[in-house]
Amino acid sequence: MSGELVFLPLGGAGEIGMNLNLYGFGPPGERRWLMVDLGVTFGDAAQPGADVIMPDPAFIAERRERLEGLVLTHAHEDHLGAVPYLWERLQCPVYATPFTRSVLKRKLDEVEVSPEIIEVPMSGRFTIGPFDLELITLTHSIPEPNAIAIRTALGTVLHTGDWKLDPGPVVGPVADEDALRRVGSEGVLAMVCDSTNVFVPGASGSESGLLASLTGIIGGCEGRVAVTCFSSNVARLETIAAAAAANDRNTGLAGRSLRRFDAAARENGYLASTPAFLAEDEVGFLPRDKAVIICTGSQGDPRAALKRIADGGHAHVTLEEGDTVIFSARVIPGNEAAIARLQNRLTALGVRIVTERDHLVHVSGHPARDELVEMYQLVRPRIAVPVHGELRHMVEHANLARDCQVPEAVVAENGAMVRLGPGRAAIVERVPSGRLAADGKRLIKVDGEAMRGRRRALFNGVLVVTVVLDSDGMLAAPPRLTALGLLEEGEMAEPVIAAVEEAVRSSGKKAPLDDDAVAEEVRIAARRVFREIYGKKPVTSVHLVRV
Amino acid sequence: MSGELVFLPLGGAGEIGMNLNLYGFGPPGERRWLMVDLGVTFGDAAQPGADVIMPDPAFIAERRERLEGLVLTHAHEDHLGAVPYLWERLQCPVYATPFTRSVLKRKLDEVEVSPEIIEVPMSGRFTIGPFDLELITLTHSIPEPNAIAIRTALGTVLHTGDWKLDPGPVVGPVADEDALRRVGSEGVLAMVCDSTNVFVPGASGSESGLLASLTGIIGGCEGRVAVTCFSSNVARLETIAAAAAANDRNTGLAGRSLRRFDAAARENGYLASTPAFLAEDEVGFLPRDKAVIICTGSQGDPRAALKRIADGGHAHVTLEEGDTVIFSARVIPGNEAAIARLQNRLTALGVRIVTERDHLVHVSGHPARDELVEMYQLVRPRIAVPVHGELRHMVEHANLARDCQVPEAVVAENGAMVRLGPGRAAIVERVPSGRLAADGKRLIKVDGEAMRGRRRALFNGVLVVTVVLDSDGMLAAPPRLTALGLLEEGEMAEPVIAAVEEAVRSSGKKAPLDDDAVAEEVRIAARRVFREIYGKKPVTSVHLVRV
Repeated sequence: MSGELVFLPLGGAGEIGMNLNLYGFGPPGERRWLMVDLGVTFGDAAQPGADVIMPDPAFIAERRERLEGLVLTHAHEDHLGAVPYLWERLQCPVYATPFTRSVLKRKLDEVEVSPEIIEVPMSGRFTIGPFDLELITLTHSIPEPNAIAIRTALGTVLHTGDWKLDPGPVVGPVADEDALRRVGSEGVLAMVCDSTNVFVPGASGSESGLLASLTGIIGGCEGRVAVTCFSSNVARLETIAAAAAANDRNTGLAGRSLRRFDAAARENGYLASTPAFLAEDEVGFLPRDKAVIICTGSQGDPRAALKRIADGGHAHVTLEEGDTVIFSARVIPGNEAAIARLQNRLTALGVRIVTERDHLVHVSGHPARDELVEMYQLVRPRIAVPVHGELRHMVEHANLARDCQVPEAVVAENGAMVRLGPGRAAIVERVPSGRLAADGKRLIKVDGEAMRGRRRALFNGVLVVTVVLDSDGMLAAPPRLTALGLLEEGEMAEPVIAAVEEAVRSSGKKAPLDDDAVAEEVRIAARRVFREIYGKKPVTSVHLVRV
Repeated sequence: MSGELVFLPLGGAGEIGMNLNLYGFGPPGERRWLMVDLGVTFGDAAQPGADVIMPDPAFIAERRERLEGLVLTHAHEDHLGAVPYLWERLQCPVYATPFTRSVLKRKLDEVEVSPEIIEVPMSGRFTIGPFDLELITLTHSIPEPNAIAIRTALGTVLHTGDWKLDPGPVVGPVADEDALRRVGSEGVLAMVCDSTNVFVPGASGSESGLLASLTGIIGGCEGRVAVTCFSSNVARLETIAAAAAANDRNTGLAGRSLRRFDAAARENGYLASTPAFLAEDEVGFLPRDKAVIICTGSQGDPRAALKRIADGGHAHVTLEEGDTVIFSARVIPGNEAAIARLQNRLTALGVRIVTERDHLVHVSGHPARDELVEMYQLVRPRIAVPVHGELRHMVEHANLARDCQVPEAVVAENGAMVRLGPGRAAIVERVPSGRLAADGKRLIKVDGEAMRGRRRALFNGVLVVTVVLDSDGMLAAPPRLTALGLLEEGEMAEPVIAAVEEAVRSSGKKAPLDDDAVAEEVRIAARRVFREIYGKKPVTSVHLVRV
């Protein structure tokens, strides 16, 4: 057996969210590839107009005939959300456990992409090309989170996916520590592991600890109670329903994504002891002190149910003085301002707000430091490869792994190919990586021309000038002008028009200029007016037409 | 004495930052006004291209002949930063204590605005129109923070400004609780008070508590140490220098704003026992284990010293493996992502990062709940008017005031005029308020046409089409097109050109259309191509020229 075993992240190594992990086996040029997860992340002000952002899969798409399959560790958006966008470029079989498969199929129903999705059981063992895979059940803020033991002729990798060690996960079993210990005892070459909460001391806390707290909080409420959480957190839905029932309240769902996850969960036997949730219109008819409404929108998303309720624009649900909203979710960094705006809107309605700042209403799904230490003790890898973190998280995680006596730790950002074996682990190659933005109907590069143009327009405004010249180089018609993002109501473009006319006149007096030279003189003259009067340097182009 | 005493916030009531408070005395129509503070806030993605944001002073600018003066409580940007931009519209005398006056004069040196700045002493008492003012020294994260007791014939208002109760402020005296108690005993009609940290339990902690902690942290460092904090926090500069000296290190400053505050402080007798800070070029020559560099840039600002150092672009200072950066400042909400990018850059250099998450390196300058309670016990106002907070902070503050036995609490957002007396406090009028953005050389409305145009361009891209028609309505030249933010490298505009040509042809076959109608057909045709091919709806305009 010649060749190497390599790990290559194209997403998620250098950021939290947007995972795309590759494992390659064999000699360079003949490597066969396994992909683990294919997720999205959300855009920010640097990607104006984009819906979601995902890894650029160009490197593996160019080698797709040697891509043996894609395995999904779990059903969070940052692990499977890019499948509808990118699968056509990959064309490989997709492997998922039942719940994850249900969630993915619902997403694919909305697009015209039909990958083969092979259902694999929890704790299943199966082969994809040269990779022998065993799923190991962990716990996380969604049903069916899996680590994958990837056995190869050059050694075993434990890819953890997202996880925590929750002694009371509410939905699904506890983490299969026996399996982790067994694989560890067989010998693990490398562990590729979640870094999200490496700066958080202690343990993440148990999902089961929330029932008493939520029951108490809801018991103290007099009006309507709305609880917002992540739709995929099925255990949280069960806990909220139980806390509501303990207070003689019925629970409904508001928001499409919640209904989809509820359906996917029940389809797979989860929520079996939780009565069917009421629909939005049904819950709207309950007496205010008998209702709990679980809503989408914990991050302040303007299209989600809670924002529409707060703005008074929801068809069935209103909130008013005396009602309570519980934010049972973490604040994703970058969403602080949107969440604050939402909470201010709710405050204006007289609604009381409960958050994890003041009450126990949320626990994280990712391992804090004590759990990471426990995982290293169970698995005992020779090499630690932190992923699912920004650089500062991955570096801290590598330090923690070394403190746990792991002999080697490699910090590799997206595009860095890590040789796991044979020999010492090392970054052996850097391959192209990048980000794509879903923009309207297509995917565009985040650092491409279209996005760059938008960012330029954003800061400087846009100016387009049309000048029509006759054969003598004289204006055949008055100049026309579009100024976007530059003029206030009532402000006139006359000084620009005058400058353009003067530029045409003066260029006519020079030695005969070609059209490009005249256009450039016009461009400089028009732009100068904005710079001098307004202090702005608009993105300026000139349509010079000769008739 | 007829008329009323009113309070009218135009900035800062509904947001943290950008303060503009007005007090009016007399019958409506003859009211004489006092302004307290005139600050800025920082723009975000919703104000593309803007440098800073400030309150729209139109209401008071229209009445400036009855604006008697502007008093500045302290020298933070959100309290005086708008003076250089707005004073010409107000033309009133400005009152400030010595340090605040020094800071303001340095800002005004950069612009051509020369208000009369009347220096008033700490604890000074002076009259502005019908208002009898007494300054009361408090503590805050800057020298010379003042509350103002505003005495009128209709009662006394205590306007707190920004404050905390710090038993060891390092620079300046402790808060003058005797004066607060004395004014309280005279009887206070209303207290207009800082809400920033109303959700924070306990007390804010003392500036003096940082010396031991910073001395210990720096003592544990082997390489160069950089500390980033707010430039205006003169006490922090003194503490950092003392912690450096205790470890046999010299301290330098990197960043223009730090040098300006250092100069303003020393000019007024502060930092007298702190040796002169080294300049950037001097500190660059010190042995790495003998240097502490205080840097601007705690919020990740790309133009500040720390970002330039992290990017390797600073002329005199570098950081490398083994060095440490201490973030001795809070994270201003909205800056999380920029700070994370900065910290990741530093991590990539091998620099260790210390933040308030892991060590005692910062205390807030605003009152936590226990301090608010103590202030209400000292002042005992009849009416509480929370300011300097988002709505959720102000509502929580009003609840806390009621818990403190304050008989009335009024939550008033920007533009809400509160009658403080005579009679029950109430919002009696709503006046126009808004925000202006400093944009190039001028101020534009945040919700005006120029900003709206930029936001539209941002999400959709911009398309401008030029068609030149002859007198028969035929194209006299090929159409020209500018598409900004729409096409990727190598993508061609041919389909759009073809659609434009077809639109001109087909409109030529209809009953004679006027130019506007043809232009509209061209606009719709061009836009449709982008919608159908790319799924985008660009902001589209057409320059139709008839020759």
